Amino acid sequence: MKVVIAIDSFKGSISSIEAGTAAAAGVRDVFEEAEIITVPLADGGEGTVDALIRAASGQRVDLMVTGPLGEPVQAGYGLLDGGATAVIEVAAACGLTLVSPEERDPLATTTFGVGELIADALERGCRRLIVGLGGSATSDAGAGMLQALGCALQDAHGADIARGGGALASLAAIDRSGLHPRLADGSVRIEVACDVDNPLHGPEGAAHVFAPQKGASPAAVLQLDAGLRRFADVCREQLGCDVQRIPGAGAAGGLGAAFAGLLGAAMRPGAALVLEAAGFDRLLPHCDFVITGEGRLDGQTARGKAPLAVAAAAAARGIPVIALAGSIAPEADALASHGITTALPIGPGPMPLEQAMQPETALQGMRRTTRELFRLIRSTKGDHH
Amino acid sequence: MKVVIAIDSFKGSISSIEAGTAAAAGVRDVFEEAEIITVPLADGGEGTVDALIRAASGQRVDLMVTGPLGEPVQAGYGLLDGGATAVIEVAAACGLTLVSPEERDPLATTTFGVGELIADALERGCRRLIVGLGGSATSDAGAGMLQALGCALQDAHGADIARGGGALASLAAIDRSGLHPRLADGSVRIEVACDVDNPLHGPEGAAHVFAPQKGASPAAVLQLDAGLRRFADVCREQLGCDVQRIPGAGAAGGLGAAFAGLLGAAMRPGAALVLEAAGFDRLLPHCDFVITGEGRLDGQTARGKAPLAVAAAAAARGIPVIALAGSIAPEADALASHGITTALPIGPGPMPLEQAMQPETALQGMRRTTRELFRLIRSTKGDHH
Repeated sequence: MKVVIAIDSFKGSISSIEAGTAAAAGVRDVFEEAEIITVPLADGGEGTVDALIRAASGQRVDLMVTGPLGEPVQAGYGLLDGGATAVIEVAAACGLTLVSPEERDPLATTTFGVGELIADALERGCRRLIVGLGGSATSDAGAGMLQALGCALQDAHGADIARGGGALASLAAIDRSGLHPRLADGSVRIEVACDVDNPLHGPEGAAHVFAPQKGASPAAVLQLDAGLRRFADVCREQLGCDVQRIPGAGAAGGLGAAFAGLLGAAMRPGAALVLEAAGFDRLLPHCDFVITGEGRLDGQTARGKAPLAVAAAAAARGIPVIALAGSIAPEADALASHGITTALPIGPGPMPLEQAMQPETALQGMRRTTRELFRLIRSTKGDHH
Repeated sequence: MKVVIAIDSFKGSISSIEAGTAAAAGVRDVFEEAEIITVPLADGGEGTVDALIRAASGQRVDLMVTGPLGEPVQAGYGLLDGGATAVIEVAAACGLTLVSPEERDPLATTTFGVGELIADALERGCRRLIVGLGGSATSDAGAGMLQALGCALQDAHGADIARGGGALASLAAIDRSGLHPRLADGSVRIEVACDVDNPLHGPEGAAHVFAPQKGASPAAVLQLDAGLRRFADVCREQLGCDVQRIPGAGAAGGLGAAFAGLLGAAMRPGAALVLEAAGFDRLLPHCDFVITGEGRLDGQTARGKAPLAVAAAAAARGIPVIALAGSIAPEADALASHGITTALPIGPGPMPLEQAMQPETALQGMRRTTRELFRLIRSTKGDHH
């Protein structure tokens, strides 16, 4: 009996690792000798670096970089595959949590530190970069990151523009000749975990949709949107690159545009990218069951969330998938067509949500439900007539 | 794939048949061609006659008998096995629901109608009687029933005592010479479904424990208890039968004493008796799974309740048992040692009890949970490597 467990966190209740450990205990309650592999799940958002370091036995690198407001911050990223791959969360260098609420202002915040993290990884010889977007405090179209990586972004007088989304309105030229040589020669593959398809500017763009929650006033949103449009215009006119048409260009305050349009990155669904980086597929041969899950299985689950990526990988090999959740919405019935064999809740019956979300309750339920299911599985393996 | 389904009612929510039908639909969602047998469950209490008529393709007999207060009532019982077996609920003839709350008075209520039901069954040639206790409005030690069956219960003056528990205090002699000949010759087997072990009288006896809920005042309880003691004394002194020592003699206001002590009935755990009468064991050969369940699986379930009787019968043949419940108490973990392979709740997650008990919610949950489990079962049957 070999079981691979990859359960997403139950947000506000238990972590991915806690959920997986409880499920593993439930399997062992029945199959004492089972081979069980527990993989932490992530989708490119917060926790992705830690999850991949754990899953792929990577190591962590910490360094000082330029924070979102220009102050020094300590930021970390992960090295996998013996140093060949770096996994970076942009929030480590320009995250909203690095800025106190009263200082939040995407007109001023910069992604410069993201470029410094990437440069550090390049210096160490990484040939593949996996980048998780999400949680950024910025709206600068990745201008700061590009500057840190050697691009010149200049105004009409040939002077470097200031940092922050507000300065983009004065952008007149982008000069890529100074770009870091490891990026310029195309020897590094960059993959960006991206689950939104917002364009760079306009009503569905980075400024209008995401900047308000980063502290932008209505007036600042208009100013930021004009800057992002200016960035797109310069890219199109001078570099022949129409970043506005790239789905997801508006992710992380326009970092999507810089990555995909100017650094040649591939934009990929986060969960699938992270699973691949974790080496998930290599765990599946001879696997009898895969267990996945998340706090609530619903219609959203089918739209690229982590449990569905797990199920898809398992289903491709014909492995049954058990999905366990805190609750299961009626729409979840459709998940059967996405490779989920069996979807069940972990609670013991009717109870208030707050009680169900108590970590102790959730962990007991996870172990109990897994145990009961594997007791059923065991019963089907014997000849009982 | 052959599945036998025997789920108890979810009290206040869905009936045994409704639960079984929903579970059957869940099995068919996965195994379209499955052979499914749905058996209604009962434990000798209310609904036993209907459950057995359904399960054993019996028929119903209706007749007018003497009600608990002496008024005529229409009462029914069941004929099984082509008329060889009668199944009788005493509540049909002397039930609490036949007496309005203000008229409830075990000093006055009689079991006479129970004797009339039995006599009718005997006239029809029944050789086996299955009797469900529970829900009686009486506390007369079955004196009324015995009278209806031909026994003489007399006072010190040789006069028949009046009906009702209150008159037992004047009992001086029991003369069985007039007992119905089919009972006197021992050719009829009587089995009583009984899940309590209360003695006839005393602190744990019928009067003290059960009479208050039938309308007896504290003074009436003492009077009833004295009458029951008198009945036991006469039985012991004149008939050589110590009914007080029979476990369950105090059931149904002392009907247990009359049945077991004076009519030679066997007292048996209700659920097992009813399952046997339903022919449950004959359904199990070549059965792949048994599904049972009830509203709440807890420590009480192991104490002779219907799902445990189902599990015991299935486990004896090595058939895996799936138990589905509205909620599952922590103590239910011990059920695994009673033949239950897998115990799971049917709800989709945290919700208020009232919502979970909505019939539509329960039926959907029953079908969904069964379907998910049989999808898992199906996945274990194929070779998926």
